[in-house]
Amino acid sequence: MRSTSFDFTPLLPAELPAPAAKWTGSPRYNITGGNNDPDHVPVDGLIAAAEAVLRREGRSLATYGLASGPQGYRPLREFLAAKLKRDAGITCTFDDILLVSGSLQALDLVNAALLARGDTVIVERDTYQGALTRLARLGINTVGIPLDGEGMRMDALAAALADLKRRAIRPKYIYTIPTVQNPTGTIMNETRRAELLRLSEQYGVPIFEDDCYADLIWDGRRPPAIYATSKSGGVIHIGSFSKSIAPALRVGYIVAGWEMLSRMLALKTDAGSGALEQMVLAEYCAPHFTEHVPALTRGLRSKLETLMEALNEHFGTAAEFDDPKGGIFLWVKLPDAVETLKLFPSALAAGVAINPGPEWSTDPVHARSRMRLCFASPSKEEIRRGVAVLAEVCRKEFGVPARIANVERRAGA
Amino acid sequence: MRSTSFDFTPLLPAELPAPAAKWTGSPRYNITGGNNDPDHVPVDGLIAAAEAVLRREGRSLATYGLASGPQGYRPLREFLAAKLKRDAGITCTFDDILLVSGSLQALDLVNAALLARGDTVIVERDTYQGALTRLARLGINTVGIPLDGEGMRMDALAAALADLKRRAIRPKYIYTIPTVQNPTGTIMNETRRAELLRLSEQYGVPIFEDDCYADLIWDGRRPPAIYATSKSGGVIHIGSFSKSIAPALRVGYIVAGWEMLSRMLALKTDAGSGALEQMVLAEYCAPHFTEHVPALTRGLRSKLETLMEALNEHFGTAAEFDDPKGGIFLWVKLPDAVETLKLFPSALAAGVAINPGPEWSTDPVHARSRMRLCFASPSKEEIRRGVAVLAEVCRKEFGVPARIANVERRAGA
Repeated sequence: MRSTSFDFTPLLPAELPAPAAKWTGSPRYNITGGNNDPDHVPVDGLIAAAEAVLRREGRSLATYGLASGPQGYRPLREFLAAKLKRDAGITCTFDDILLVSGSLQALDLVNAALLARGDTVIVERDTYQGALTRLARLGINTVGIPLDGEGMRMDALAAALADLKRRAIRPKYIYTIPTVQNPTGTIMNETRRAELLRLSEQYGVPIFEDDCYADLIWDGRRPPAIYATSKSGGVIHIGSFSKSIAPALRVGYIVAGWEMLSRMLALKTDAGSGALEQMVLAEYCAPHFTEHVPALTRGLRSKLETLMEALNEHFGTAAEFDDPKGGIFLWVKLPDAVETLKLFPSALAAGVAINPGPEWSTDPVHARSRMRLCFASPSKEEIRRGVAVLAEVCRKEFGVPARIANVERRAGA
Repeated sequence: MRSTSFDFTPLLPAELPAPAAKWTGSPRYNITGGNNDPDHVPVDGLIAAAEAVLRREGRSLATYGLASGPQGYRPLREFLAAKLKRDAGITCTFDDILLVSGSLQALDLVNAALLARGDTVIVERDTYQGALTRLARLGINTVGIPLDGEGMRMDALAAALADLKRRAIRPKYIYTIPTVQNPTGTIMNETRRAELLRLSEQYGVPIFEDDCYADLIWDGRRPPAIYATSKSGGVIHIGSFSKSIAPALRVGYIVAGWEMLSRMLALKTDAGSGALEQMVLAEYCAPHFTEHVPALTRGLRSKLETLMEALNEHFGTAAEFDDPKGGIFLWVKLPDAVETLKLFPSALAAGVAINPGPEWSTDPVHARSRMRLCFASPSKEEIRRGVAVLAEVCRKEFGVPARIANVERRAGA
């Protein structure tokens, strides 16, 4: 047993985040997080890719950056340039792409290149928790723009930009997840994308486009990326392989003009992201990506249906949601009586993990009774049981769903 | 051709580092950097490991952190606990280890957990450039302690600690690379390690022990880590697989008590380091590490001899250096007339990259005529030719080595 008499406490700087808790394993029914479907990890394909690429180029692991330099493994950047052209309408070359350690490092690099404490950014009102916690730690003011079924509302954005301008505040960027928005699952329509670009240029505020879920659309019909239709170059585009292949690989990318890419590259002082993962992804994706993704999304769609059925069965009309067009999450509104921040610990004690709405929103009042449920990772059986347990906990704690609600919805279904 | 009329310049925060230059390929004779020997990447072993571990556990790539939680792949932490016991005398469990994206992320996490702008730290006078540039960017004052053939000088450290105390400055840590010091190649003897611990406890200043080269000792006789002999727990220990297996994998680790590990884990907001690399390393290293490393170090020793011979041949007595006990670099003193910061661009123009001494030291006067040469990555032929070209450039620019020096040394050899 190691004695630890040395006291580090007086040495810690102010504003350090709270220490992490010891990890004690996953909850039994984990309906949170960006985890993917284990049945759709292309294990055989990755094994074959690893063997082929290591056999051919394994010696290059002796060199930081392989033979590709600091922007990352060139064949993966070349695959991405072709894929982004085909799927998102983006015209770029491998030279416009920086490979990073997951889209979280992309967020860190964009933030480091543009933000200083006290700055203001515009985000979607309901948005990715990881973006919000980063902005809070950096001391950034966030202005949240409401969404509807077509994504960020441009009337509200125009009003916010005008209001900020009156107050002499120039926001540093407009952060959007336009394609399968997290957590609402909406896809911004093309009219709004054009209007967003117009407003961005009018006010001189760049767009930070996070397209990391854009591969996961049920009908495969992805609109052109905002980056693709920008004429001014005022867009930074990021994406990831976490959702399309596997999150634990930690490979994402940034597409930007050299003016900003050179700034972010200077801030990326990690001597490169993991090379083996880049190599294996390039080798696997070049021949297999376009056949892999539709199989994956069919599986995800089927799990989403299980989740929606389970919610209808156990919550009835008490759970309101729109059927999303893709993705791995469902944004659910419970009755106003329910506080999901309070539901969270009770549910966890019963073995069910949920994402409470206020952690995914700039507006805790709006998000008070909302929660994000993620359906990619749990099995269908776990989804059904998890939702049943969640409904029981919610009923005990908040009196909803009333039992009658089930009957109403099931009768009408 | 993409027009980029959008001007990001007014949005950039103050104190942003200069933009990166476009990468234009490696110099012909690259005698710099932490790159390893491509002939000693265990390609076959890594292929077999990738197949075995993916076949068995590939589905877990669908989950952030695999089934191991946020500290990293558990079998790799278990391998490390056993290895650190065997090689470094460290008693710890997998729970005391945090896997990170190379030792650079370890530096970032230790710094983030302990440092605030204006703080002071103690470092070895000649030390790792990546540590110095990080400290400079964070606005930290560094106090450099001279080294001799046995590592950091404890008389100088005691004097520096007393002096700082008189000025009411408590340094946040003492950073040391005790085992195959970068760039001097020295190994701190055990008496000094004990004295360092005593001073650390007397002044309440923790030790930050960077042992990332410690596997690469020619005779394999590694002294117990400082972490191993600390009774107070005031040591943070970091290491890496970059030097023992391959740098492009980007896998390092931190060993620390939970008080500090929980702080660093809270700051590691990257959703885990690359899992495939952790899996493949664990699978490969558990059976093969102890046979791989001696073969690697034999190869490195042989390249070092080529480098020393080439320096003797082309620089003669003008190049002074100690024969290091391990590692991948040689710290070379040239005559006082030579400024290595000026030699650097001329040499690069001739196709030879060197590390100029002042980038690896807190004392630019002391390091003015010194340079770091790295011998692991270039072939023996490249080492020989690179040193010959370097000597030519140096002679043209600074008048040394004089031709006579060669003859003297060769006659005496």
